[in-house]
Amino acid sequence: MKAELISIGTELLLGDIVNTNAQFLAKELATLGVDVYHQCVIGDNEDRILQGFKEAFDRCDIIITTGGLGPTQDDLTKELAAKYFNKEMYLHEESLEWIGRYLNIKDEEVLEANKNQAYIPEGAIVLHNDNGTAPGVIIEEDNKILIILPGPPKEMKAMFSSHVVKYLEKLTGKVIKSRTLRIFGIGESIMAKRINDIIQNSTNPTVAPYAKDYEVTLRVTAKEDCEEKCEALIGPKCEEIKSILGEYIYGEGEESLDLVVAKLICEKKLTIATAESCTGGLIASSLVSYPGISEVFMEGAVTYSNEAKVRRLGVKEETLNKYGAVSEETAKEMAEGIAREANTDIGIATTGIAGPGGGTEEKPVGLVYVGVFIKGKTIVEKLNLSGNREAVRRKATMNALNILRKELIRNY
Amino acid sequence: MKAELISIGTELLLGDIVNTNAQFLAKELATLGVDVYHQCVIGDNEDRILQGFKEAFDRCDIIITTGGLGPTQDDLTKELAAKYFNKEMYLHEESLEWIGRYLNIKDEEVLEANKNQAYIPEGAIVLHNDNGTAPGVIIEEDNKILIILPGPPKEMKAMFSSHVVKYLEKLTGKVIKSRTLRIFGIGESIMAKRINDIIQNSTNPTVAPYAKDYEVTLRVTAKEDCEEKCEALIGPKCEEIKSILGEYIYGEGEESLDLVVAKLICEKKLTIATAESCTGGLIASSLVSYPGISEVFMEGAVTYSNEAKVRRLGVKEETLNKYGAVSEETAKEMAEGIAREANTDIGIATTGIAGPGGGTEEKPVGLVYVGVFIKGKTIVEKLNLSGNREAVRRKATMNALNILRKELIRNY
Repeated sequence: MKAELISIGTELLLGDIVNTNAQFLAKELATLGVDVYHQCVIGDNEDRILQGFKEAFDRCDIIITTGGLGPTQDDLTKELAAKYFNKEMYLHEESLEWIGRYLNIKDEEVLEANKNQAYIPEGAIVLHNDNGTAPGVIIEEDNKILIILPGPPKEMKAMFSSHVVKYLEKLTGKVIKSRTLRIFGIGESIMAKRINDIIQNSTNPTVAPYAKDYEVTLRVTAKEDCEEKCEALIGPKCEEIKSILGEYIYGEGEESLDLVVAKLICEKKLTIATAESCTGGLIASSLVSYPGISEVFMEGAVTYSNEAKVRRLGVKEETLNKYGAVSEETAKEMAEGIAREANTDIGIATTGIAGPGGGTEEKPVGLVYVGVFIKGKTIVEKLNLSGNREAVRRKATMNALNILRKELIRNY
Repeated sequence: MKAELISIGTELLLGDIVNTNAQFLAKELATLGVDVYHQCVIGDNEDRILQGFKEAFDRCDIIITTGGLGPTQDDLTKELAAKYFNKEMYLHEESLEWIGRYLNIKDEEVLEANKNQAYIPEGAIVLHNDNGTAPGVIIEEDNKILIILPGPPKEMKAMFSSHVVKYLEKLTGKVIKSRTLRIFGIGESIMAKRINDIIQNSTNPTVAPYAKDYEVTLRVTAKEDCEEKCEALIGPKCEEIKSILGEYIYGEGEESLDLVVAKLICEKKLTIATAESCTGGLIASSLVSYPGISEVFMEGAVTYSNEAKVRRLGVKEETLNKYGAVSEETAKEMAEGIAREANTDIGIATTGIAGPGGGTEEKPVGLVYVGVFIKGKTIVEKLNLSGNREAVRRKATMNALNILRKELIRNY
C-alpha cells in the first residue's frame, strides 16, 4: 500500500514553522508497513491543492493531508476534498455540538465563527478531535482514500494515534506494535555490532537502532493479527536483547535517563545532594524536572570557584593545590563533602573542563571526573568527552546520572 | 521570481529526521522576495527525482534541492541533474583536491571512496563546501535555474548564506539585510499593538514580529542596491522601535537572554551567586553556558528543602514558619543569604511552585518569587506563570535573569 503526505499551510511555505507533522506521519506509516515515496507542502490555494490531489493520486492509493481545517476563509482542505470527489457538504450535528461544548459557546455562535468546521463531505467518516474544534475526515472513493487531519501537531498526533492507526490496521489486516529500548553508555555502531545477528535475522519483530542526542534507542516492532500476538513476539525479543546489552539498557519508551534515575532514588528512599563544577547545575535541574524529587533531593551546590569547593564542600586546600580542581581526588572529596554537609545518603559530583578554553595537554577540554558517594562508598570515574561546551556539559551530566543508576540497581 | 524546494533523501521519507532544511530555505527565500508555492520530499530514486524536476519546472523558474550528494551509489542528485539537462559530468580538479585535504587522504583514495563527489555537470557553477566534502552546484539552462545543495544542515546553511544569497541577490538586482531584535517581558500581541503603526506603515524596511519560546523577536528587513543603503534604513528603524519598547529589547541576533546577562555581569566586573528552589539549578546552568563566567560566578545553591535554606543561606526559621517557603520574605532572605555566604556583589534567588502538585488556592501552581540582591539593595518580584512544570521553571529562570538585567543597565 502506497501513501503520500500533503501538508497544507502558508506558514510552512514561509518557513515560519518546521514541518514536524510530516516526520511524525512518515515514521508512523513506516511502522505500519505503508510505503511513503513522496511528501509535499502546498499553500491554502484552490488550484494548487486540487492539482496536488490529482498528482498524488496518480502515484498512490492513500493521501494524508494535514492543515487547512481552521475556522477562517483561508482554510479550504475539506471543501476542496468534497469538490475533488464531487460530494456535497452537510452540517454534521455532532461536530457542531462538540465545537460549542469545546469553546463553551452557543450553537448560534458556533455557526457564526466556526461554522465551516462542522461541515463534512457526504459519506465521509468523521474523526473526533479530542484536542480542538476541527474534526478530521476520511473519504473512500474509487479505491482511493483521502485522510484529512488538522494542522496543530497536538491535535493531529492524537487523532492519528486514536483513530487513523486502527483504520489503517484494518485496511492492512494487521496490528502493529512497537517497543523502544533506551540505551546509554555504548555507541550506536558498537551496539549494532554486538547484536548484529539479532538485527539481521529479525523479521517479525524487526529490530532497528536509532541514534538520539547522546544516547541510542532500539525499536522492536511486531506485525500480527492482534495486540496479544504482537506482545508475544516483542517480549522475548526484548529479553534476548537485554541478555546481551544488560545494564546499557536504562529504560523503555518515553522514559528519559534523568527521569529513570530520579524515580530510582525515590523508590529506594535514599536522599541525595549534588556538587557540580563544570556541569554548573545541570544535574540538579535534571533531577528537579521529576515532580516527586522534593522528598529526597536535599540540596545542590554549584561550586565553580576553588574557594566555594573548600567552604561549601570541605574539599582540602591541599588536595586542590596538589592535584588541581579537575582531578580524581577533588571529585571524590566533592561527592563525600556534599553528602556530609547535606547529611544525605548520596552525594554526586562533577569537575572538569567544558571548554572552549582552559584545556592543557595534560588536562584537555572534555576531561571530566565524576564522583558518586553512596552510604560510605565512593566511586570516581574519569571521562574524556568530545564536542563543544554544551555537549561536554550534557554528556557529563548523563554519565554522572548513569554511574549512579548502575550503582543503585546493582547494590540497592 | 518563483522557486520550489525539493528535499531528497530516504531518511526524510521514513521520518527518521525532521526537514529543517526546508524551513530554513523557505524563510531565507521569503526574505529575499522569492516566492515559494511548493516544497516536496522524494527518495533517492532516479524516476521520481527526474519526474520531480519536470513537475517543479512546469510551475517555477528556480529549483533548490538539498540532499543526495553523499559519496555512495544511492546519492544521485548531481548525476540526474546532468541527465535532465543533457550535460556530461567531468572531474573537477579543485573539488578533488579539497576533498583530499578535508579528509586528509591522497587523491587516489579520494578517487576510490569519494570520487563521485568531485564530478560536476559541464558548465555548472561550483559552490565550495566549507564544512564538508560535497560541493554544491548551480546549473543555468533555458531560463531555468537548478541549485543543488548538500543535505547536512550545517553544510547546506553555510553554503546558502555564503554563496547562494549573493547569487540570488544578483538575479533580483537587490541586496537584502535584516536585523533581529530580541524582546522579553511583553507578549507578542501587546507588543504588536504598541508598535502597530510601525509594523503597518513600514515597507522598506519591513518589520515583522515572531513568537519564540517564552520570548518575542522583531525582524527588520531592508531591500536595497547595496549593504550600506540597507543598513542606513535598518538603523533608524531599530532606533525608532527601541524608543518605544525600551528595556523590553534585551539583545540582537543570536544573543540569548542568559548570554546577554552573563556578559553584562562580566563587563560590570560584579561577582554573583545563585540560590534556587523551584528552578533547581537552571539559573546557574544558564549562566555557566557562557564560557567567561568562571571569573565572576562564585557559587550556586539549590536549596530545595527548608533545612537547606536555613543552613546554607541563613534564611530564618521564623520567616519560613510565618510566611512559608514560597513568599516574598523567603525570596529576599535567600538572595541576601547567598550573597553573604559566597561574599558576592549579586545574589539571585527563586522560590515557587512549579507543579504539577503542591498548589493551593492561596499559592497556586505557577506562583514564583524572584529575589535579586545587588550591593546592599534587594528587589523582590512576584510572578504568576502559566504552563507545565518545565514551562514554569524556564519562565521563572528567564524572568529572574531579566530582573537582574534591568537593574544592571539602569544602575550600574
